[in-house]
Amino acid sequence: MDFSSKLLENAVYEMSQLPGIGKRTALRLVLHLLKQPNERTKGLTTALSNLREGIKLCENCHNISDVQLCELCASSKRDRSLICVVEDIRDVMAIENTSQYNGLYHVLGGKISPMEGVGPQELTIGSLVKKAKSGEIKELIFALSSTMEGDTTNFYIYKQLEGLDINTSTIARGIAVGDELEYADEVTLGRSILNRIPFEGSLKAN
Amino acid sequence: MDFSSKLLENAVYEMSQLPGIGKRTALRLVLHLLKQPNERTKGLTTALSNLREGIKLCENCHNISDVQLCELCASSKRDRSLICVVEDIRDVMAIENTSQYNGLYHVLGGKISPMEGVGPQELTIGSLVKKAKSGEIKELIFALSSTMEGDTTNFYIYKQLEGLDINTSTIARGIAVGDELEYADEVTLGRSILNRIPFEGSLKAN
Repeated sequence: MDFSSKLLENAVYEMSQLPGIGKRTALRLVLHLLKQPNERTKGLTTALSNLREGIKLCENCHNISDVQLCELCASSKRDRSLICVVEDIRDVMAIENTSQYNGLYHVLGGKISPMEGVGPQELTIGSLVKKAKSGEIKELIFALSSTMEGDTTNFYIYKQLEGLDINTSTIARGIAVGDELEYADEVTLGRSILNRIPFEGSLKAN
Repeated sequence: MDFSSKLLENAVYEMSQLPGIGKRTALRLVLHLLKQPNERTKGLTTALSNLREGIKLCENCHNISDVQLCELCASSKRDRSLICVVEDIRDVMAIENTSQYNGLYHVLGGKISPMEGVGPQELTIGSLVKKAKSGEIKELIFALSSTMEGDTTNFYIYKQLEGLDINTSTIARGIAVGDELEYADEVTLGRSILNRIPFEGSLKAN
């Protein structure tokens, strides 16, 4: 693309560094900001700067937080003996949206992935193991994505907990509620048959 | 969505005000910035602020420019008697990319659209008519999108130029080069037959 303005070119370049934003989309977004009142751009840039400078991670669960201890960890209503291990803060938000979980979380910050140069040291596994050794935790729920990296990470943590009196579980995989069996992939359908649950148990969930 | 951080919520809100960016995408973009080094965010916010504060419109063609007169208008190699009327700076970039045009441009900044509250006063039509009356222009090429609003705008400008010795033309509409006839819409195919050109003329274009 041939820009008539260096300032514009620079703004489009920076915008196109965001994931999933190509040059054309970046140009559209930047031109949109130019058409809007000045305050729009100012609002966006201020919000991003404030976030980048002011953001903290909860010292207990590593969730994003404005204070040292996040709302969930600070709450007296949550079950502190139950920890759900997730990859990312988006997973915390997704599970919180279900209103079905009353324990705490532990945000790993990613999965072990040698291909991308992410080892256990890059994640918050150390602090999770330390928490586990303090004796406060009764159950650890693995809720990582079911990929090779997710499984590896689960297993790595599982090995680190050997000898401790902690139950481990993973979230159930199966056919989504409302989905048709004929369109499900075989692996998922297979697992949902292997891991079937008593019919009386399924009634309680609703 | 339930955010654990006000700073995060605010950044996601501002990001989701951009066109085509929903809440989920905004969250993904903001979390991406958080994972990147500080400089990434700083680069983006600085580029946007600089653009918003430093941007100028070329006083002749209203194209975005860093200086008073844009490169195209300042160039001595362009044909100043030929003006291509476009909606937006993206159209200028698109036409420049073809390397087939050697005249100047006039960026209207939009189309007349009573539905969206855009009248002739909101556009740069006044300055175009003034330019036309100065006697410098021999031909005006309308290159607006072929919608109701585009046609209205073309016609409005055409009426303003009545009595002046200026040729007006519109860019050719037809089947795109390389496209199959059977998949073309009828209006386009119909126009491309009505507005057929001499075969010898079509040879020159290549």
